[in-house]
Amino acid sequence: MSILNSDGLYLEDVHVGTRLVTATYVLDAEQIKAFARQFDPQAFHLDETTAAATFFEGLAASGWHTAAITMRLLTTMKPTIAGGIIGAGAEVNWPTAARPGDELRVEGEVAEIRPSRSRPDRGIVLLKAQTLNQRNEVRQQLAAKLLMFRRGA
Amino acid sequence: MSILNSDGLYLEDVHVGTRLVTATYVLDAEQIKAFARQFDPQAFHLDETTAAATFFEGLAASGWHTAAITMRLLTTMKPTIAGGIIGAGAEVNWPTAARPGDELRVEGEVAEIRPSRSRPDRGIVLLKAQTLNQRNEVRQQLAAKLLMFRRGA
Repeated sequence: MSILNSDGLYLEDVHVGTRLVTATYVLDAEQIKAFARQFDPQAFHLDETTAAATFFEGLAASGWHTAAITMRLLTTMKPTIAGGIIGAGAEVNWPTAARPGDELRVEGEVAEIRPSRSRPDRGIVLLKAQTLNQRNEVRQQLAAKLLMFRRGA
Repeated sequence: MSILNSDGLYLEDVHVGTRLVTATYVLDAEQIKAFARQFDPQAFHLDETTAAATFFEGLAASGWHTAAITMRLLTTMKPTIAGGIIGAGAEVNWPTAARPGDELRVEGEVAEIRPSRSRPDRGIVLLKAQTLNQRNEVRQQLAAKLLMFRRGA
């Protein structure tokens, strides 16, 4: 298994406090509805008029759409992680829903590094990140457990 | 704001231990790749041949794809939640990745009910659920914080 044949960051290359900022992703109403039709077909994600009479008082992105966009933004960063961005799990919170017109970016930092006890060639890196729009409204808080390998693993 | 004009479950209708099982969703390689191209364009989600040489040793679904399918399965349940399934946040873990051919279903139960102190018309219901395939392999563990309203809110 040659998992580490790509360039990118190894476990030794990151430290608590290492920061990241991604590029930007522009979200529009059509994208919100297309994701919703596939994965979260509820009125507040599907149609502006119906959405107006719901809790969200207008068209709002599915939280899972915001999470997916966050992942996309993380995958486009350079340098990437050697072997890829492999998540063991994550905690997400959506203090507000993403909306049409949002220009989303992710800002994060390494909060914790846990070397594996059973497998010395790897560790889990806890990335804490926020997904923000152009007005710095927080659309998602993320704490992701990322698998990272040591150089030469 | 008429958020509760749909039929469905209110906060009073659920109890710790209330169980749910959803319908089934059949995942194939094309769906895995299509989601990945949009949201998680990494080799192990995009192409069987390249994926064989990665950590996953074959084509694997993005964890966020599994999360999105889980949401879809939850939205198709009857009865649904009055006002819709509105998540404040969630914890997801992916003990194994979903694979082509997986027939996914969600099984869950209400683990906790927290009435809001500041807003007596609502509460947060903690749903713990697993997304399983036809061989009962656990593809996702979920703990979701769902907003629910009282009848007549």
